[in-house]
Amino acid sequence: MPDFSDNLQPASPTGPSILAQERSQSNVPITELATHLLSRNDFLARQERILPILEADPLFNKTKQFNLSRPERYHLGLARAKKLRRYKDQYGWDEEDFKMGEYLCDDVSPFMVHEAMFPTTVREQGSKEQREEWLPRIERWEVVGCYAQTELGHGSNVRGLECRATWNPKEKNFTIHSPTLTASKWWNGSMGRTANHAIVVAQLYVPKSADSSELVNHGPHPFIVQIRDMKTHQPLEGIVVGDIGPKYGYAPMDNGYMLLNNFKVPHSAMLSNYSRVDPNTGTYTKPANPAVVYGSLTAVRAAIIMHARLIMARAVTIAVRYSTIRRQFQDRDSSDKAAPELPVLDYTTVQIRILPLLATAFALHYTGEAMYELYSSTRAEIDSGDFSKLATLHAQSSGLKSLCTELAANSIETCRRAMGGHGFGGASGYIQLNNDYLSKPTVEGDNWMITQQTASYLLKRMQAAVAAKGAPQDEMEASCRSWLQNEHKKSPTPFAIYTSDSEIVRAFHRRSRDLTHRAYISRFVQNKSWNSLLLQLRQLSHAESQSILVSNFHAALSSPTLSATLKSHLTLQFRLFALYTMDAHARDFSKAHAVSEADLDDLPDRIQELMAQIRPHAVRLVDAWKVPDFLLDSALGRADGRVYEDLWHRAHRMNPLNEVTFNPDCRSEEIVLGGGVGEEGVRGILAKL
Amino acid sequence: MPDFSDNLQPASPTGPSILAQERSQSNVPITELATHLLSRNDFLARQERILPILEADPLFNKTKQFNLSRPERYHLGLARAKKLRRYKDQYGWDEEDFKMGEYLCDDVSPFMVHEAMFPTTVREQGSKEQREEWLPRIERWEVVGCYAQTELGHGSNVRGLECRATWNPKEKNFTIHSPTLTASKWWNGSMGRTANHAIVVAQLYVPKSADSSELVNHGPHPFIVQIRDMKTHQPLEGIVVGDIGPKYGYAPMDNGYMLLNNFKVPHSAMLSNYSRVDPNTGTYTKPANPAVVYGSLTAVRAAIIMHARLIMARAVTIAVRYSTIRRQFQDRDSSDKAAPELPVLDYTTVQIRILPLLATAFALHYTGEAMYELYSSTRAEIDSGDFSKLATLHAQSSGLKSLCTELAANSIETCRRAMGGHGFGGASGYIQLNNDYLSKPTVEGDNWMITQQTASYLLKRMQAAVAAKGAPQDEMEASCRSWLQNEHKKSPTPFAIYTSDSEIVRAFHRRSRDLTHRAYISRFVQNKSWNSLLLQLRQLSHAESQSILVSNFHAALSSPTLSATLKSHLTLQFRLFALYTMDAHARDFSKAHAVSEADLDDLPDRIQELMAQIRPHAVRLVDAWKVPDFLLDSALGRADGRVYEDLWHRAHRMNPLNEVTFNPDCRSEEIVLGGGVGEEGVRGILAKL
Repeated sequence: MPDFSDNLQPASPTGPSILAQERSQSNVPITELATHLLSRNDFLARQERILPILEADPLFNKTKQFNLSRPERYHLGLARAKKLRRYKDQYGWDEEDFKMGEYLCDDVSPFMVHEAMFPTTVREQGSKEQREEWLPRIERWEVVGCYAQTELGHGSNVRGLECRATWNPKEKNFTIHSPTLTASKWWNGSMGRTANHAIVVAQLYVPKSADSSELVNHGPHPFIVQIRDMKTHQPLEGIVVGDIGPKYGYAPMDNGYMLLNNFKVPHSAMLSNYSRVDPNTGTYTKPANPAVVYGSLTAVRAAIIMHARLIMARAVTIAVRYSTIRRQFQDRDSSDKAAPELPVLDYTTVQIRILPLLATAFALHYTGEAMYELYSSTRAEIDSGDFSKLATLHAQSSGLKSLCTELAANSIETCRRAMGGHGFGGASGYIQLNNDYLSKPTVEGDNWMITQQTASYLLKRMQAAVAAKGAPQDEMEASCRSWLQNEHKKSPTPFAIYTSDSEIVRAFHRRSRDLTHRAYISRFVQNKSWNSLLLQLRQLSHAESQSILVSNFHAALSSPTLSATLKSHLTLQFRLFALYTMDAHARDFSKAHAVSEADLDDLPDRIQELMAQIRPHAVRLVDAWKVPDFLLDSALGRADGRVYEDLWHRAHRMNPLNEVTFNPDCRSEEIVLGGGVGEEGVRGILAKL
Repeated sequence: MPDFSDNLQPASPTGPSILAQERSQSNVPITELATHLLSRNDFLARQERILPILEADPLFNKTKQFNLSRPERYHLGLARAKKLRRYKDQYGWDEEDFKMGEYLCDDVSPFMVHEAMFPTTVREQGSKEQREEWLPRIERWEVVGCYAQTELGHGSNVRGLECRATWNPKEKNFTIHSPTLTASKWWNGSMGRTANHAIVVAQLYVPKSADSSELVNHGPHPFIVQIRDMKTHQPLEGIVVGDIGPKYGYAPMDNGYMLLNNFKVPHSAMLSNYSRVDPNTGTYTKPANPAVVYGSLTAVRAAIIMHARLIMARAVTIAVRYSTIRRQFQDRDSSDKAAPELPVLDYTTVQIRILPLLATAFALHYTGEAMYELYSSTRAEIDSGDFSKLATLHAQSSGLKSLCTELAANSIETCRRAMGGHGFGGASGYIQLNNDYLSKPTVEGDNWMITQQTASYLLKRMQAAVAAKGAPQDEMEASCRSWLQNEHKKSPTPFAIYTSDSEIVRAFHRRSRDLTHRAYISRFVQNKSWNSLLLQLRQLSHAESQSILVSNFHAALSSPTLSATLKSHLTLQFRLFALYTMDAHARDFSKAHAVSEADLDDLPDRIQELMAQIRPHAVRLVDAWKVPDFLLDSALGRADGRVYEDLWHRAHRMNPLNEVTFNPDCRSEEIVLGGGVGEEGVRGILAKL
């Protein structure tokens, strides 16, 4: 309905003119930087190719989806996921194209597990016959699968699972059973409403001998199990399965629960590439090499870090653009009372929340790249069964997963709060981003727990370095030995961090070795209990991860392919990330004699200077991350700067609540004016409670 | 539908047996502590009286509300708010009873502004005639009001508002007009769908003289304006008003937008207790004393802090209870391979996230109490026009609002992440709590911005202390003078923080004076610009606020009414809060010579010891906050410990998504199995996009 607001404009200066001015004042080479950041797997070209297809399809419109209920979001998610699969066939997309479609759609797909963990498990854990039987049906999405490992009472500690699979020698089959409520499978994605099959992970019980009634537990094993009828999609007899209900995020995903009541599955259900039960003798055979899973886990973690950087880039893109457009207060020291209000990004209190996060996105990028490189360069050794380098990489990847997903998760809320009131609004672009991403600090290894793996590895290397028997076993041990000899025994000179960037890298390195040695003393000299050291170990893991991030970032700056202009911009990003991180842990660096007290005292001023240098380039720096408006789904972060027009448009023209006139009279039970108390009113609402 | 899950139990030990054991091992005097914490305004008795009424009314059932869409949440919120108002009449509730009803209902009411800011403004800003005209109609909820100050382009800086009210001398009325899109009123609670009246804050323009066409801007003034028809509830001609759409939280609240198109209001619309325009001469009269608003703002901020402590208590109640019930991994150092898994609250990595927050809830409590006391003890001076003590209190209250709402807002997410996977689930009790509370760091003064007010006050006192003319003007100046004389000029001995608790208080005090003086040097000796100091000023404000929190907490411990047992428990809470806060800012304390390096190095171990002492009492300590299950709405935090039964119940029996069977076939456009592609399927969803 037209009204006088149709002809109103925002006050000047307008968003488009401000962004044009911001872009014209900086020499950041956007195309060069974008290519530098987004070429792996042809990311950028793929994004440009897939984006218009989704933009043109009304099913992928996002503007109003925040008004849908959670059950409706599953309906929508299912419709979109199926459509994407049809696009794949229609356009001949490869796997990476399809993933790009999902990334741009930005729904957590109800087929997510069917596309990844489910087939991966069949491929890796299934025998040749099992692969041949299942993979083609999975590829056709005829068998729709999920992965049922975690239970209501059991998450990270897989050995504590209660679900049991017992071998029946006479019937030559297994009975899968959930003996308690806490044994219910829980959280398993795609299981609630979508899947018709599941990999069920259960404790394998096998009779001790052919005619013994005594059962031996061989630990958790995967079974492929049909859970729903292929025609009616109803749960099979003996299976109670459903969706666990609304969650913080992941609205379109049907995370499920499942109890199995003495459910019989054939011998062929147990995935038997490594472990198997001989159907005739009932003999159990163990896996050849348990380290075989390491490899894919490391690749998964590299992907998590690369994803985290895109999440941060997205959060920061919105924050930088809007905080140059948003103006608040005149300069307090200005004598001109009619002076214009300042863009909020000119305030250091806004800069300190946003610009270090921009720098962190770059830091994550280079470490993600380094992990991919290292993983593929050691791939040959891995395939030939030499897992030594992989063990190091895996230990590092735990700490990095923990730190990087923590940084990314926190970045969204930090940016949101820096946006003032509109950050709380539905058009900020932060809400679904935050709600979905906040799963990451918990999944794929809880962030607080897995720091123990990195710390444990470092402790062992330091222990070996102290023992100093023969040649060092790996680089870390050599590094520990060198530190013991050259830095620990003498009182070392602090690094001149403002003189050379490589001194910054060395300072992080020394601090991490110092903390490693302190933890070593606590554990192996003072013999403290492991559990009493958990906080110290976490601190150590983060210090090592920060050292890796700083080190990879610095190494990347010497790439010969960078133009001088780009290199100078990236160098500022490197320094901001490193010095900001250092400032947050200044006492560590002091205790380690890594940085002088005077230099540490200087950090806040140096950080402020760096931010002032970066500020004029902020808009072009985020432009280079090439996050499309379609993905941002943010009035505040639009590339064209039409913030207020879009906020108005969404509120005034796209809000279904405004189509209803309500009855505010408190003496009346009526809710919708003239609607009575029936289905449209209080009775309809009551029925849903 | 009954199934075999009806007879399943969770694995042992069960939640109820664990909580019983936890409760039996501690001597925390729950009733004494609850009375100690919750007696102001008869809170506890009121809660016990109102709770059963809401529990018995199905309209206030919360279990399934997370499945509703945002428009439905407004419907529900309106129905509940009107019902509460009818309960008020029915049961003869007073204002505090009614607020208790809203607190327990836990919806942000669509009448919130009608109940508070709207009548308060009429009462304070309205003339006697205006009060007599409006207040009775407001009290009857016949006039339903909102407060339209902030605009699309203007939040904290009220002077930047664009909406104009121009005095028309001939017609003897005002024209209220929104000249741009950014002038649209925005965010104003209750305005979107509920209110029929608004206080509109607009720049007052008055002709310079009787027959001059030149207009003089007298700044923002409040006008009371009817915005909707009293019968049809449709916007009046010239007004475009609606709801701004979904937000992070506040689903039942209709935050609104409004444009006024040359809208005429009578002379009586301008609230004129202080400022007024003479209808005959057109002369504008200024307010007598602008400081008059200070008083209620300070009371509002005391209430914000008292509310923040309840939010933290709620977050921590869930976290403590569930993390004693949840078990994960055996002790890594245990030689017994069949040892039971440990409750996660036994891990320091869980303790460090939860127990300091428990201590913080107490810290906030005592400062909230102290603010109320101070405010009412100076009430007489305020009423007689002496605002000097109020100015101090107000300056302190800015920093405290910033710090305390930050602590409370962060506490929810910190607790949630400590709960593992179930923290991400809808039954955690954290989701709505977080989504709603996250408005608080932004509203009532943005947390980053208002720290300037506290710092500015401190700088002025230090400046006066350095000048040292005559007797000190207030306590803060006296404190600055004493520090300058006794602590600044000599190199003072650090405080023995582990010997006496009052030494801890002194250490916080010295650190705050030291930071005050450093900021003073930057501003008044080095003449740095205000905007270059914002980060330093924020640090100062937080340091002062922490000093106040520690100081009030310590003072409360000497209350003669505390039993020895309770005092010993509260002393541990005090130490944990103080030392945990100190550890996070250790370098400040070192630089200020407030604490020795050796003592600072010891902090992590001391904190760990304190947490070990508090751990056995954690469940009874949270019990004493008496947060009812009805309010927690959390399977994890239930007082009876039936965590897994409740999670199962909500998922299996209360989830509407499980009533629908879907079609997972990717080649079909059908969503609901057998439902076709019509209203129930993809077409119905498309219509909502």
